[in-house]
Amino acid sequence: MARRKGRALTKPTHPDTREMTQRRRQTVSRIAIREAGARVFLEKGYLKATLADIAVELGRPKGSIHYHIDSKQDLLFEIVEHSLTVFDTAVEKIVAYPLSAVDRLRLILREHVHWVVNPQFAYTATAAGRELASLRPEQLEVVSSHRRGYRAVIYRLLREADEAGDLQIDNVTIAARSILSIVVQLPRWYSPDGKLNPDEMADALWSLMLNGLKGQPAPGN
Amino acid sequence: MARRKGRALTKPTHPDTREMTQRRRQTVSRIAIREAGARVFLEKGYLKATLADIAVELGRPKGSIHYHIDSKQDLLFEIVEHSLTVFDTAVEKIVAYPLSAVDRLRLILREHVHWVVNPQFAYTATAAGRELASLRPEQLEVVSSHRRGYRAVIYRLLREADEAGDLQIDNVTIAARSILSIVVQLPRWYSPDGKLNPDEMADALWSLMLNGLKGQPAPGN
Repeated sequence: MARRKGRALTKPTHPDTREMTQRRRQTVSRIAIREAGARVFLEKGYLKATLADIAVELGRPKGSIHYHIDSKQDLLFEIVEHSLTVFDTAVEKIVAYPLSAVDRLRLILREHVHWVVNPQFAYTATAAGRELASLRPEQLEVVSSHRRGYRAVIYRLLREADEAGDLQIDNVTIAARSILSIVVQLPRWYSPDGKLNPDEMADALWSLMLNGLKGQPAPGN
Repeated sequence: MARRKGRALTKPTHPDTREMTQRRRQTVSRIAIREAGARVFLEKGYLKATLADIAVELGRPKGSIHYHIDSKQDLLFEIVEHSLTVFDTAVEKIVAYPLSAVDRLRLILREHVHWVVNPQFAYTATAAGRELASLRPEQLEVVSSHRRGYRAVIYRLLREADEAGDLQIDNVTIAARSILSIVVQLPRWYSPDGKLNPDEMADALWSLMLNGLKGQPAPGN
């Protein structure tokens, strides 16, 4: 009894707390698997990677992964859905800001650049359609719905900025798809370790998108 | 002998001609295999597709494919290299035109839009990095060198147009990569059967690239 009390000072033994600690350990472990999975998928490609590779990456026995994850396919879905959800949450926050549509578009672009260079989300940012085709139809539908939602936000803000007279857009679909193409391809050529940091890259891209190749008209023109 | 002469009227028997006919038959067949391969790879993905699938697509026994093609990997390379070579040839022609750099850029963009919507080249236009990673290093190097060459053309023309004062580009790398991102992603959302035909799409993209989201300044401004 005395011994118990002594231990309780450093390690709580109350059942609820113990359960929380246990749950926390499982949660941490699941996050570790997700992050290791994203690294392995990014490096080897989903089709070639195995759960055994992920166990090696974690330095743990394969069984410890199977305890959390039923299949490679489920892990792929968990990685992709988590990345997209983090991004969508950030975008929703920006959409609700009391700022002009143009300013919100600029902040979303900045958020997107930060997201694609974050190593935690890099796999999802570069995952090609072929790899995601390995998902079950209902999983793929969740991914598609995230993407449709994001496209809808870009369309809506572009239309709003056009109506406000801040932008002058002939074809909203083409404008939205072009912006999205540029950010989707970004991780294939941009490294944040290069000349421009993510904020500078976001500024440079935004300036190009706004003013085009002809550049900003000289003041007074 | 008389019989031989009789046949010669419709079917030449001269050894050289016969060889040419034979070679021609082989060539035609090789093209058919390449085109069927591109269709099957586009539909199933390179990793899942088999030479047997391609034989089915052609309606011919599998052996007739093995006669021409050693491996699926070699067929992938042949498909991709052929598509890139056709495109590069067209681009080189445009680069040599006695036109301003801006006009040549516009024509290259138009060529690119036509290329990505051509069913013959659609597989190469959409092939993800992961699929091309299946190539042997020396094959991959050929593909990369085509891409580097094309990027170099875009960079050079942008710089030329900037120096001529027709464009005003802060960062040529970002401008070139953005243009290329838009055309690379195009086949993922654009269908030539929709509202805009390829020429109209090329015009709309060019106008957006030139003037940006702010649009063309009103005349007199």
